[in-house]
Amino acid sequence: MSSSVRPEPAAYAQIDPPPRLLMGPGPINADPRVLRAMSAQLIGQYDPAMTGYMNEVMDLYRGVFKTSNEATLLIDGTSRAGIESAIVSLVEPGDKVLVPIFGRFGHLLKEIAERAGADVVVVEKDWGQVFTFEELRRALAQHRPKLLALVQGDTSTTMNQPLEGVGQLCAEYDALFYTDVTASLGGNPFYADEWGIDAVTAGLQKCLAGPSGSAPISLSDRAVEVIRSRRHVESGIDDGSAPRGERIRSNYFDLAMILDYWGPQRLNHHTEATSMLYCARECARILLTEGVENSIERHRLHGAAMAAGAAGLRLRFFGDQAHRMNNVLAVHIPEGVNGEAVRTGLLQDYGIEIGTSFGPLHGVVWRIGTMGYNARKDAVMTTLAALEQVLRASGAPVTAGGGVGAAAEIYQEAAA
Amino acid sequence: MSSSVRPEPAAYAQIDPPPRLLMGPGPINADPRVLRAMSAQLIGQYDPAMTGYMNEVMDLYRGVFKTSNEATLLIDGTSRAGIESAIVSLVEPGDKVLVPIFGRFGHLLKEIAERAGADVVVVEKDWGQVFTFEELRRALAQHRPKLLALVQGDTSTTMNQPLEGVGQLCAEYDALFYTDVTASLGGNPFYADEWGIDAVTAGLQKCLAGPSGSAPISLSDRAVEVIRSRRHVESGIDDGSAPRGERIRSNYFDLAMILDYWGPQRLNHHTEATSMLYCARECARILLTEGVENSIERHRLHGAAMAAGAAGLRLRFFGDQAHRMNNVLAVHIPEGVNGEAVRTGLLQDYGIEIGTSFGPLHGVVWRIGTMGYNARKDAVMTTLAALEQVLRASGAPVTAGGGVGAAAEIYQEAAA
Repeated sequence: MSSSVRPEPAAYAQIDPPPRLLMGPGPINADPRVLRAMSAQLIGQYDPAMTGYMNEVMDLYRGVFKTSNEATLLIDGTSRAGIESAIVSLVEPGDKVLVPIFGRFGHLLKEIAERAGADVVVVEKDWGQVFTFEELRRALAQHRPKLLALVQGDTSTTMNQPLEGVGQLCAEYDALFYTDVTASLGGNPFYADEWGIDAVTAGLQKCLAGPSGSAPISLSDRAVEVIRSRRHVESGIDDGSAPRGERIRSNYFDLAMILDYWGPQRLNHHTEATSMLYCARECARILLTEGVENSIERHRLHGAAMAAGAAGLRLRFFGDQAHRMNNVLAVHIPEGVNGEAVRTGLLQDYGIEIGTSFGPLHGVVWRIGTMGYNARKDAVMTTLAALEQVLRASGAPVTAGGGVGAAAEIYQEAAA
Repeated sequence: MSSSVRPEPAAYAQIDPPPRLLMGPGPINADPRVLRAMSAQLIGQYDPAMTGYMNEVMDLYRGVFKTSNEATLLIDGTSRAGIESAIVSLVEPGDKVLVPIFGRFGHLLKEIAERAGADVVVVEKDWGQVFTFEELRRALAQHRPKLLALVQGDTSTTMNQPLEGVGQLCAEYDALFYTDVTASLGGNPFYADEWGIDAVTAGLQKCLAGPSGSAPISLSDRAVEVIRSRRHVESGIDDGSAPRGERIRSNYFDLAMILDYWGPQRLNHHTEATSMLYCARECARILLTEGVENSIERHRLHGAAMAAGAAGLRLRFFGDQAHRMNNVLAVHIPEGVNGEAVRTGLLQDYGIEIGTSFGPLHGVVWRIGTMGYNARKDAVMTTLAALEQVLRASGAPVTAGGGVGAAAEIYQEAAA
C-alpha cells in the first residue's frame, strides 16, 4: 500500500481511464447504454418509481434466468456476494454440501461453504475437463448432500459444465441444487426452471455487458422455504409455529430479510445501491431486447471466429473444446514465448487486454474473451490482427494474415 | 412480489427516474459530477491505470477520514457491507463486544455482532439522546469488551454521538474501538487518528453526495494485526509462526484477504466493482477539493437554516439539539396532521422527498436532510416554501412566509 504523503486534491485529475479493448475473461467493456443508465439521477428508496423499477428488475431477470421464480432479485455486491448469500442462507452449520470442482470457482464455492460451517465433500476433475452426468450421480449417491453446489461456466478453465438433468438428479437424491452462472449467463444456454435449479447466482461483468457490482439471484420455492425457516423475527413477535432453522450467520447476506425487502412488505434492509440497480436493469433490458437465444448465438459465432483465428495463428487450444464456454477461449502460450511480455505489448501498443491465468494454468495459457459488448466482429478481427503482430515480434511462428483470414471464413460461412 | 406475466422487453422503457429533490435522511441526489464519473468506460482489474486509481482511492479516503492508516480502502457493497466486514473480521465467536445503542443503527451493530458469534452486551439511551463520556467509561469498566462498537451519527434519531476521547478510553481498557460514520462523515467533524479509532466504516449516500453501493473503510495498525492473525493461507503454505485466530466466517467480508488484494501483493479476491470505485473516488475528490472543514461548515450552515425555517413553520424539534448531526433534523408531526399525507403531497405536487421514521418514532417525527449535494440554499428555501403550502393545506397552523423568512435570516447573518 502507498504510504506516500497526500498531494493536494487538485493533483487527482477527473476520472479518465485509458481506452482499452478488454478481450480477457472479464470484466469487459461495458455497453455504453449501461454506463449511461447509471448516470441517471437517484430517487428515494421507497419512491413509487423506485419500487416500480425493483419490480421490473425482478421480472427482467426472470426472463434472463428463464424462470417463473418470484424470488428473483439483486444482491448489492459483486458476483461473489451473490454466491455467499446463496450458500450462507441455504446451508446451516453441519449440513453436508457436495462441491464438484473443475476450476478455481469450485474451490471458491467449497471455501465459502466451509466458512458457513458446512460439512463439505468435494469431487475433482483435472482442469480443462467437466463432470459427466454419471460422475455427478455417483457423487450424489455416495455423499447424499443437502446441497449440490456446482459452477456452470468456470473462467479459470473456460469449461462449461453441462447442467441439463442435474436438477432432476438432485431431486432424486433429495438435494438442493445451486449453481453460479456468472461467467456463462447470456452467452450459453441456461434454463433455471427446465433444469430444476433451486438457486442460481450471476454477475453483470461477463456476457451481460455491465460492470461488476450487482449480483442477480433467483430462488425456487423449495429454496425459499428453506431460507424462510431460518427467518428470526426481529421484533420478537413470533407465534412459534414456523419451523426454525439456525439463524443465518450474516445480516448482509440474509436472504430471508432480503426477500422481505424486495417483497410486497418492503421491510427495510440495506439502502439500495440505486445506480447499480439502474445498471442491472439496463443489462437485462438490452439482453431481452436482443433476445437471450440471439445473444447466445452471437456469442457462439464470435467465439468460434476467435477460436478459428487463434488456430490460424498456430495457437493450440487448452481443455475439452466440446465443453468450452462460447465466450472465452484458453490457448497455450507458445514454447519460448514470454506470455506476460505479449500481454504487455498488446496493452501498451494496441490498448488490448487479454487474460493471464491462475493456479495450475498460470504461465501456461492465455484466456481470450469474446463476450457481452465485445462479442463483435470488429473486436475479434482487431484482436487477431494485433495478436499476430505481437506474436511475430516475440518470435512465435505465425502465418501472416492467418488469424484474421480464418476468422473471416467463419463470418463468411455464417453470412452465407 | 409481482407474479405477473412478463411483458415484451420493449415494454420496459429506458431508465428515466422522475425529477426529485431528496431532502430526507438519505439517499439524497448525487452530485452530477459523481454520476458522470460512473459513466467512464471500464478497464481491467490489474491494468496499471486501475491499480493507480485504487492507490488514489486509498489516499483520498485517508484525507476524508483524517488518518494515516495504510489500510484504507473500499468494500464492494452498501454501507452495511462495510459494517459487517469490520465486525466479522475483528470479532471471533465468544469475543465480548460492547454496543452502546441510541438508535436503530446501534441495534444493527448488535445484531451483526451476535450473528458473528460475539458475546454482545449493550447499554441503551432513549432515542434522541447520546451517551456521556462517563457513561461510556462505566460501561467499558464494567464489561471489559474486546471491541467497543459505537455509531457516530444515527439517522434514525438524528443524533451525533461525541467520539472525542473515546479512543483513548478504549486504549485504557484494552478495547478496540470501531465506529460507523456513514450518516455523519463529511458533514460533521471526524478525526480517525486524533480520536484513536481502530476501525471506521462509511457510505457514499449521505454527505459524500454519491449513491449507495461502496463502503470506505479504514483500519488502524492494531486492527490490522488482529485481522491478519486470522489469515488462513489458502495455498496451505504457512510457516506456522504467525498467531492463529479463528478463520473469518465470511469470504466476501474477509478483510485479511481484502487487504492482500488492495495491498502491493494484489492477490486476487473479488472482481472490483469498477464503476462504484470511480464513484467513490469522485466523491472523495469533490470533498477534498472543497476541503473537509469547508464541507462541514456548509452542512452546519444549511442545517441551521433548515432548522430555523422549520421553527418558523412552528415545527417542534425532536431530540437533544446540542448533539444533533448538522445534516439531518427530526421534527414532530403536528397534532392532528397526517404525516404520510404531507409526505405524499410534497412528493406528488413538488417532487420533494422528506423522510418518515422507524421504530418508536414512526408516525411521530419527520426527518429532513440537508446533506451532500443538497446542502444548498436553493434546496433549503424550496423545501421550506413547499412545506409551508402542504402544511397549510393539511390544517397545520403555519405563518405565511415564516419558514423561508427564518432561513433567510440565517443566510444573511452568515453573509454579514
